[in-house]
Amino acid sequence: MQLMRIGEPGQERPAARGDDGTVYDLGPLTGDIDGAFLADDGIGRARAALAAGELPVLSGGADGAGARIGAPIARPGKVVCIGLNYRDHAAETGAQLPAEPIIFMKASNTVVGPNDTVLVPRGSTKTDWEVELGVVIGRTARYLESPEEALGIIAGYTVSNDVSEREFQLERGGQWDKGKSCETFNPLGPWLVPADEVDDAGKLGLRLWVNGELRQDGTTADLIFGIGHVIWYLSQFMVLDPGDLVNTGTPAGVAMGMPGQPYLRAGDVVELEIDGLGRQRQELRDA
Amino acid sequence: MQLMRIGEPGQERPAARGDDGTVYDLGPLTGDIDGAFLADDGIGRARAALAAGELPVLSGGADGAGARIGAPIARPGKVVCIGLNYRDHAAETGAQLPAEPIIFMKASNTVVGPNDTVLVPRGSTKTDWEVELGVVIGRTARYLESPEEALGIIAGYTVSNDVSEREFQLERGGQWDKGKSCETFNPLGPWLVPADEVDDAGKLGLRLWVNGELRQDGTTADLIFGIGHVIWYLSQFMVLDPGDLVNTGTPAGVAMGMPGQPYLRAGDVVELEIDGLGRQRQELRDA
Repeated sequence: MQLMRIGEPGQERPAARGDDGTVYDLGPLTGDIDGAFLADDGIGRARAALAAGELPVLSGGADGAGARIGAPIARPGKVVCIGLNYRDHAAETGAQLPAEPIIFMKASNTVVGPNDTVLVPRGSTKTDWEVELGVVIGRTARYLESPEEALGIIAGYTVSNDVSEREFQLERGGQWDKGKSCETFNPLGPWLVPADEVDDAGKLGLRLWVNGELRQDGTTADLIFGIGHVIWYLSQFMVLDPGDLVNTGTPAGVAMGMPGQPYLRAGDVVELEIDGLGRQRQELRDA
Repeated sequence: MQLMRIGEPGQERPAARGDDGTVYDLGPLTGDIDGAFLADDGIGRARAALAAGELPVLSGGADGAGARIGAPIARPGKVVCIGLNYRDHAAETGAQLPAEPIIFMKASNTVVGPNDTVLVPRGSTKTDWEVELGVVIGRTARYLESPEEALGIIAGYTVSNDVSEREFQLERGGQWDKGKSCETFNPLGPWLVPADEVDDAGKLGLRLWVNGELRQDGTTADLIFGIGHVIWYLSQFMVLDPGDLVNTGTPAGVAMGMPGQPYLRAGDVVELEIDGLGRQRQELRDA
């Protein structure tokens, strides 16, 4: 089972997707897939209701039959990101390997659906892509004791595109948030896959294509700081809330690290996927 | 008139404070002082209802008569901060004057009431204070045309303490968010003062005391980038939503810039105020 949100922006309905792609209405259980739902064992209750045949089919066809897919979670309370968390990506940017996780943030209103248009900001010449494993928090966490404990507070996983404007990020004062928070800069989804339905989130292939050409082809096995470590670490510096999103870092293959730096322009098409977590497709347009 | 939120954490009731300190229940108008309320001319409606005598008194005494005061707005969608925005503060930190605003973020769950306990994070040795003018956004804004237009989307002003852990901020990877997002790190309030009730937000004195000793004594007249400029600038990089909070920077006098660097410890008391916007008082405790 995967969780989804289907419908026009701001009017998404919560849904459960069965393993055959049929999409069921979660409306009888919850108004949205948000922190309160996740903290109240919403995933367990959705699974039970689905198994008991208690959920009406939301759409006749698989995957919502052409309806817009929203981000699989309601707007998060925060989007926290880990920088330079793959060795090959740190190398391609010319940065040193971090001694401990680098933390930055994206504005949470950057989160859009997995196939929504991505806007090239006005004045941008360096809009870049980043396929990332997105971690959705399931329970409030402060000062977790260990990476093992941290794995236990994860609700599930999803595909995240941490779109970045490199000039804004790196050449306009040095604090990265400026290049990370532009409108539409965080396509998310299509699904929230419950943590207990992912065999090993530390061994997932991540891939990203631009206009059909493979640009990123990595695996979460190459994370410098693994998923449990990252969540444990974050909890030492902030309170993680149910429904928060953590973007865990991107492998090599971004435009900034390529010959000629082929940054994104209006008309480009970005596709990305993570093993078992589904696939996204965005067209670029000028803001 | 000022807007307030009164009650225990998570159960605050929206209130309007008359100029004599009497606090009136805004419950008949709104469930909370949030983005939807502000965007729907909530301030104008509150003012009209107060003038018409339509609001019941929430408390017999002035300022809520001892009840806890919450942050004057519901948890913001985002908290955006401007770094090094006073010449004297940039100098005391040894930083160059910024050529354009430096943007960073705080987790929005750092926002607490103006007199709530502030927690010294575990492992912290450099917890610091920062009195700042807080700007609350009233309308959705993207790509504003000018600083003048930007002033028109401000709902109001409030006192903000941008509590900061300097080691986490500066010595643990270089992205500041790590030292800005700890639990309780953004006392806010006591009031949201409507923008049209502040004569000139660019000429307000800001003061902060630690254990009774004056540590910061500045004025928003010394902002490097003025309020309209900051909001206009931010809107070029992100979409500002109603209810968002912008911390506009702090003047000189933080612990980091003082001889001996007297960082905060459990038992310390911080008090801060801004002309016309009210006063805060926090006791420090270990997390």
